[in-house]
Amino acid sequence: MNFADSLTARTKEKSPVCVGFDPDLAKLPEGITKDADGVLEFGKGIIDAVAGTAAVFKPQLAFFEVLRWEGIKVFWDLCTYAKEKGLLVIADGKRGDIGSTCEAYAEAYLYEGSPIDALTVNPYLGIDGVRPFIERAVKYDKGLFVLVKTSNPSSGDLQDLPIGDEVVHEYLAQMVEGWGTQCLGPVSNFSSIGAVVGATYPEEMTYLRTLMPHIPFLIPGYGAQGGTAADSARGFIPDGTGAVVSATRSIIYASYGADWREAAGKATLEMAEELKRALNL
Amino acid sequence: MNFADSLTARTKEKSPVCVGFDPDLAKLPEGITKDADGVLEFGKGIIDAVAGTAAVFKPQLAFFEVLRWEGIKVFWDLCTYAKEKGLLVIADGKRGDIGSTCEAYAEAYLYEGSPIDALTVNPYLGIDGVRPFIERAVKYDKGLFVLVKTSNPSSGDLQDLPIGDEVVHEYLAQMVEGWGTQCLGPVSNFSSIGAVVGATYPEEMTYLRTLMPHIPFLIPGYGAQGGTAADSARGFIPDGTGAVVSATRSIIYASYGADWREAAGKATLEMAEELKRALNL
Repeated sequence: MNFADSLTARTKEKSPVCVGFDPDLAKLPEGITKDADGVLEFGKGIIDAVAGTAAVFKPQLAFFEVLRWEGIKVFWDLCTYAKEKGLLVIADGKRGDIGSTCEAYAEAYLYEGSPIDALTVNPYLGIDGVRPFIERAVKYDKGLFVLVKTSNPSSGDLQDLPIGDEVVHEYLAQMVEGWGTQCLGPVSNFSSIGAVVGATYPEEMTYLRTLMPHIPFLIPGYGAQGGTAADSARGFIPDGTGAVVSATRSIIYASYGADWREAAGKATLEMAEELKRALNL
Repeated sequence: MNFADSLTARTKEKSPVCVGFDPDLAKLPEGITKDADGVLEFGKGIIDAVAGTAAVFKPQLAFFEVLRWEGIKVFWDLCTYAKEKGLLVIADGKRGDIGSTCEAYAEAYLYEGSPIDALTVNPYLGIDGVRPFIERAVKYDKGLFVLVKTSNPSSGDLQDLPIGDEVVHEYLAQMVEGWGTQCLGPVSNFSSIGAVVGATYPEEMTYLRTLMPHIPFLIPGYGAQGGTAADSARGFIPDGTGAVVSATRSIIYASYGADWREAAGKATLEMAEELKRALNL
């Protein structure tokens, strides 16, 4: 099934919650060893706790790379585990390079039968660095999320530079919409090409939704970074689809005590309910 | 020793050649198995062949990630091997993310005693995504190379957008120069913060050298991508320092036959001589 259709179906069935997973060894809860085995145990526990409520599991590659090859092994094991538990998996790597290198990244993550459904992609190198991901996405019913307006405080350094009457990220948004209309899901009418748009910039999000009517949004910045349910709601279309909202620290580190599983499950459920209220669902 | 001073000393002692390493399994030469073990053997052979001439070895992470955990193990083994053979090592990962994630990337690659001397960094998220690398670079005598104007055909999609009288990559160049003057090498007067500037855009390079007088350039695009020695020379300062020029396919795939080691060594030597002629050294 087309990725955008899968994403839309899953968010309707469960909720638009995407659980980010940034396993910092220094923050692992009570009873978990501070190593790759600990990350595997922690990750499986989080997946079990959230799979009934969340649509998406989003592991952040940096936190696995820091554990070298053992971390990468755990990364793939967790992607497979999350997939088995009915979650869609977005690998958060923000990859981007020249064409021949992006072919390798695309092959690494978006192949037939991969447990990974989509990858985040950095557009600074232009369409060359995005095209290999689009080709793979179309071929294997996978997706990608292009960074458009990120959630961090300095995202405006380049993304908000004024070009004529618009700013860089608005110009990029129109390019992404153009790429995206090549691969629309027949059911959802959303594209396999998504955009990352931070909850921490709600006004920008409202405008970006109009510039990218066919683009699903991956919305980071909810929770620890300060974005709210009302802010995030601006990225959806009126029927409550078209976006997933990602929270990481507020869910996976909801407790550092022995009750971390329950706390993560509870935080996910509360977030889902807050979003549904904000979306009038 | 400060990274920029090491880089300058090494290029004076040997040459400004940086050998890129993109081990595509489909292209491995005769007699090499098409797996992670083959990549290790191929990489060691290339390192042995080029270590006498080149200053830098630049493995491209994408081609290791595609081999999963076994590839990552080989990546680190090759970085260590290159370091032992007297090469500086630049990990080409083009990483970039929000601050807390970049802390993890910085910890993964730029720690005390790491065989990796520098990492390529994508600036699309602004200074938040660069600062953790700068802090590590200063603390551990490491370096980073920020993508400014990349070598690929579509690099202008975002990098050349006009903002007032300049374009995005020129504006970024001035930010990089500003960050860079915080960490100048006492001997070279170059910064630990470098910039990626493609040989395929020679006019832009000439101007970028004036905008970033303290920034060492990592110049890709030589050889297979079409950049020449004369084009690349524009990124250097008059004494023939301030840049390294990277070639990948024209060196590591100089022959697919049993003579690939000799061919890689010869291609490196020829490139070094071409660069020295173009730089009047």
